[in-house]
Amino acid sequence: MVTEHGRLETPVFMPVGTAAAIKGVSPDEARDAGVKIILANTYHLYLRPGHELIEKLGRLHRFMNWSGPILTDSGGFQTLSLSKLRTISASGVTFRSHLDGSTHFLGPEKVMEIQRALGADIIMALDECAPFGADYDYVLASVKLTEQWARQCLEQRKDNGQALFGIVQGGIYPELREMSARGLVSIGFDGYSLGGLSVGEDKATREKVIRSTREFLPEEKPVYLMGVGTPEDIIESVKMGVDMFDCVMPTRNARNGMLFTHKGRLTIKNAGYAGDNSPIEEGCECYTCSNYSRAYLRHLFLSREILAYRLNTIHNLYYYTHLMSGIRQAISEDRLAEFIHGFYAQRINNQEKWQRESLSIQKRKGGR
Amino acid sequence: MVTEHGRLETPVFMPVGTAAAIKGVSPDEARDAGVKIILANTYHLYLRPGHELIEKLGRLHRFMNWSGPILTDSGGFQTLSLSKLRTISASGVTFRSHLDGSTHFLGPEKVMEIQRALGADIIMALDECAPFGADYDYVLASVKLTEQWARQCLEQRKDNGQALFGIVQGGIYPELREMSARGLVSIGFDGYSLGGLSVGEDKATREKVIRSTREFLPEEKPVYLMGVGTPEDIIESVKMGVDMFDCVMPTRNARNGMLFTHKGRLTIKNAGYAGDNSPIEEGCECYTCSNYSRAYLRHLFLSREILAYRLNTIHNLYYYTHLMSGIRQAISEDRLAEFIHGFYAQRINNQEKWQRESLSIQKRKGGR
Repeated sequence: MVTEHGRLETPVFMPVGTAAAIKGVSPDEARDAGVKIILANTYHLYLRPGHELIEKLGRLHRFMNWSGPILTDSGGFQTLSLSKLRTISASGVTFRSHLDGSTHFLGPEKVMEIQRALGADIIMALDECAPFGADYDYVLASVKLTEQWARQCLEQRKDNGQALFGIVQGGIYPELREMSARGLVSIGFDGYSLGGLSVGEDKATREKVIRSTREFLPEEKPVYLMGVGTPEDIIESVKMGVDMFDCVMPTRNARNGMLFTHKGRLTIKNAGYAGDNSPIEEGCECYTCSNYSRAYLRHLFLSREILAYRLNTIHNLYYYTHLMSGIRQAISEDRLAEFIHGFYAQRINNQEKWQRESLSIQKRKGGR
Repeated sequence: MVTEHGRLETPVFMPVGTAAAIKGVSPDEARDAGVKIILANTYHLYLRPGHELIEKLGRLHRFMNWSGPILTDSGGFQTLSLSKLRTISASGVTFRSHLDGSTHFLGPEKVMEIQRALGADIIMALDECAPFGADYDYVLASVKLTEQWARQCLEQRKDNGQALFGIVQGGIYPELREMSARGLVSIGFDGYSLGGLSVGEDKATREKVIRSTREFLPEEKPVYLMGVGTPEDIIESVKMGVDMFDCVMPTRNARNGMLFTHKGRLTIKNAGYAGDNSPIEEGCECYTCSNYSRAYLRHLFLSREILAYRLNTIHNLYYYTHLMSGIRQAISEDRLAEFIHGFYAQRINNQEKWQRESLSIQKRKGGR
């Protein structure tokens, strides 16, 4: 993909910069950890500090000092997940701010106005994300509304270089996913997002939905699976033809002391790391692994030092971006299946070792 | 001063790295902000993660990835300020950990053992810091005990390159300060610290104490004023012959959104900065001022983003280190008085402007 802020190779992972900051790290650190594009939240930035202010200050890139591409979501999902009250009409969503309870309205025109002011490279049409477990009729209506809003968003689009994606909804119903995909494709967008997933459904359902949607989307357009996921989720979704991902997992888990490695996940507060002078992962070239030991990271985490969250986040972002560059490399060399086999094999080989470690930690604890 | 980890020009300011981390920033950032030497806390590191562990992991420099000089305090002050129970005998201090309530003992031998294990370049003899307001007899006893412990610490010292400082006590009583200073000088240390200040006394009292102590300390040895202070405190103390300072102020205030500038202090959350695209201070070359606006810093602070604490800390550290390099430069060019005049003049000139700004912010608030 080509954006005004640089070329993007896919599949790509986008860390979440909710409030115009990737939690825990600076833009420079994100870039050094291999991050190519970030996501920012329309809902959050509209409420605080306000899109008009950000526009006045030079738009999002300048405001937050990030020179690479940015994607903004439509805010539709946050009105569901964060707002206390949500009323949907044909013209848009009325909701209450999670910050101060004030009432706001987001319709297709407003969402485009906000995203134009923020100035992201890739923007989303307003969608209605149906709650998990919604019945067929509810979801059918939501698919129709989402298509109508998407059309209105496209009509509002100015010729300012922003790529506009439509968001496919349809819950867990393959025929509604198909209807939503076909409808949006007939309108024609720069890319297509899969919304309404990772909201409670099981993995098998999610995979069925992705498959039954992807086949109705054009091969040559980027497909973005919103809010997903674990390294395993990403690998499986790439196999099904997904190009773009975002998830709070690498950053949020880092702040909770959970670190990703090729062998599996590591909980830094475990007593077994107290005297461990090795890096999080041997061979990892991230800033954290190049300079700090597990023992120090454990100490920082237990001491609740801000530096703990940051060093952990740098490592997790590096893990994710290098997982993606590994996938891209494998695709370009036509050996994705082999790559995926290797990905799982590293874990399976180490399953036994990790169990032993975990057992020995438990024994040590029990012995006290 | 020459240490194993580099030459130090004085007067110098030491940011506080309580738990083997300067709160909010990485060692690289501290170095880039001009930090030459940091302070770490014996009391804290003894309790968590433990000095023996740090020694095993390559001592403090390697553990925390800081290659410059480090100073560790004796822990005497923290047993007063943090511990719930403190019992003092001729052989040392028994106290309860503020972390888990466990009972510990620090005597001269133990304090030297801990600081040897941590491996700082400059270490402190154990002192008894009398509570603020202690009467003459209490402080007299505390001065005698501190001298006895200092002598025992010196006897315990190994030939390992660590510089050992004695700590002058004596409360607010000039004659006890003199007694303490003379006593320590007659034993002979590599430097002398002024302890028991910044604990509640007023400025005039503190200045009187510093003056009445400094004159009994050798000109050619470094004098370290512990736990002080504001830029004004530092300027005034340099005039009285103090060489080294530490204080949590630049780092703690940064985390509370208070920023130092040559014109005075700035509270970043003020509404007046909401749309302010200028840096914290025009002309400041710190990383924060080079890349971020007041408006963005205000937004980060209100959003409680970790990045807020970090960017604020970088600026405040830069302010402090550049205040110190300005002082050193002025001393070397024999124009300290002129420098100090300029320091205050910048504030006085801006007093009026700041009052106006503050008024206009209040008015705006009132108008809502």
